[in-house]
Amino acid sequence: MYTAVLEHHRLRIETALPQYLPVAEGASAVTAEAMAYACEAGGKRIRPVLVMEFARLCGGDAEKALPFACALEMIHSYSLVHDDLPCMDNSPLRRGRPSTHAAYGETIALLAGDGLLNRAFEVCVSPKNRNGLSAESALNATAVLADAAGQDGMIGGQTIDLQSEGKLIESDVLEELHRKKTGALLIAACKMGAILADADEARVAAAEAYGAHLGLAFQIVDDLLDATATAEQLGKPTGADEENKKSTYVTLYGLDGARQMAESETDAALEALSAFGEAANELRELTGALLNRPS
Amino acid sequence: MYTAVLEHHRLRIETALPQYLPVAEGASAVTAEAMAYACEAGGKRIRPVLVMEFARLCGGDAEKALPFACALEMIHSYSLVHDDLPCMDNSPLRRGRPSTHAAYGETIALLAGDGLLNRAFEVCVSPKNRNGLSAESALNATAVLADAAGQDGMIGGQTIDLQSEGKLIESDVLEELHRKKTGALLIAACKMGAILADADEARVAAAEAYGAHLGLAFQIVDDLLDATATAEQLGKPTGADEENKKSTYVTLYGLDGARQMAESETDAALEALSAFGEAANELRELTGALLNRPS
Repeated sequence: MYTAVLEHHRLRIETALPQYLPVAEGASAVTAEAMAYACEAGGKRIRPVLVMEFARLCGGDAEKALPFACALEMIHSYSLVHDDLPCMDNSPLRRGRPSTHAAYGETIALLAGDGLLNRAFEVCVSPKNRNGLSAESALNATAVLADAAGQDGMIGGQTIDLQSEGKLIESDVLEELHRKKTGALLIAACKMGAILADADEARVAAAEAYGAHLGLAFQIVDDLLDATATAEQLGKPTGADEENKKSTYVTLYGLDGARQMAESETDAALEALSAFGEAANELRELTGALLNRPS
Repeated sequence: MYTAVLEHHRLRIETALPQYLPVAEGASAVTAEAMAYACEAGGKRIRPVLVMEFARLCGGDAEKALPFACALEMIHSYSLVHDDLPCMDNSPLRRGRPSTHAAYGETIALLAGDGLLNRAFEVCVSPKNRNGLSAESALNATAVLADAAGQDGMIGGQTIDLQSEGKLIESDVLEELHRKKTGALLIAACKMGAILADADEARVAAAEAYGAHLGLAFQIVDDLLDATATAEQLGKPTGADEENKKSTYVTLYGLDGARQMAESETDAALEALSAFGEAANELRELTGALLNRPS
């Protein structure tokens, strides 16, 4: 899915992520092991790749953004661990293998999720990871991450998702749900990269706009795939949204309406990339590929 | 329990803490409400009081340390919310009223705990709360908090506590358990205050030593009270440690041995305060009162 530069980012993240996690040793090793387990096999790593790529596109050193990229991925991973818990989605599987609580038990999974959320901030604020960045840039990038992950972002979105279960919800609530639940962290990824490269306001705004449109396009395509793809294509049961009477972009706008929205959000995301010239070509390619992805 | 200056800190914390929490509004209001609920009726607020007092003792402005003091209290509060959950201690009560999951349900309590942990870092790194502090001081104080709350601190201690249930543990594991589970956050409170006042290394070390000895004395007195106080005095059932076959300072060292340890840790805490002269008299009084507390 990635080409040269983006694939290089991804490989750096795969190597660095375990190194930023706590060492599993002594009487509390099991929680550190569960934290590492939850961060393994992480799929496309799209969020941390975006952190590094926007740092590069804004003229910064992608490598300096690496600790922050890994921190953001830890927050994404913790959210999956807690979402899978019995009192939430009660999912025994995650990406084709046992979810963290299925592998380590519920209490250790709870603590491992807490540990990953906490670790993300340990990594962001550690003097060891400053790497020539100013304290001001490090603080500002951490503030963007903290705001996006909290009650006014991801946690708030998760709350709305829970409150909406089995209910028909209005389009404005659906929009708020996805903007907070999945959009906030994608926007934060792009914005953090720009901030870590000390980009000017216009480029920070362009990064933010890209993240917002990409996030929405991504979610609408998710809903379209759930309604139209085969289980074989997705590697998981389809039609789950309809069965759970879940309000989605497809139930609210129909297949054609949702498809048109996904295309126009993708166009808006591409438009935001115009601030970055030809350097953003790989990201353009990725943006189009996400719209047309088969699963 | 507090006198003039410490009581003033406590009152500032009681007023400010709700103001640093997210506003409960819109479709996700319930999680913000549960976060506020978990921070109410917080007892002595000893940790945030220590943050403010060490800032003052080191010549800083206690008011500038207030956001960090409240952030630390949020982390303490989240740890209680998650500890009370059914998969952990399964406690329906906390300080004489329904625990957060008993009041709001398990899923919202889980999210509220996550939200409080996340909010603590939002507050620490927000440019709005800088208040004339340098970015460097804000980052360093946040790093102390993050390290103390994580897998190498409180979460690791909680893991050891879980792993030790119903087992007889050695004195070194008991020491590691308490140093991480309750000691780390107390030490961080004292150290953060000193760092926020830009104290020199010797005073940061004195603050840290005070926190370490106070934390240990506090835990040993807890164990003594569980073994000797009446249920009426404690406001909760006593003898729970013995019933749960829990290793404590009393089971390992006997009543007299534990009492002597509590006294010598208290003496060491008082010794650490000598770096702060007469200004620390209220803290001296508090230190003695904690040793001789009836509950």
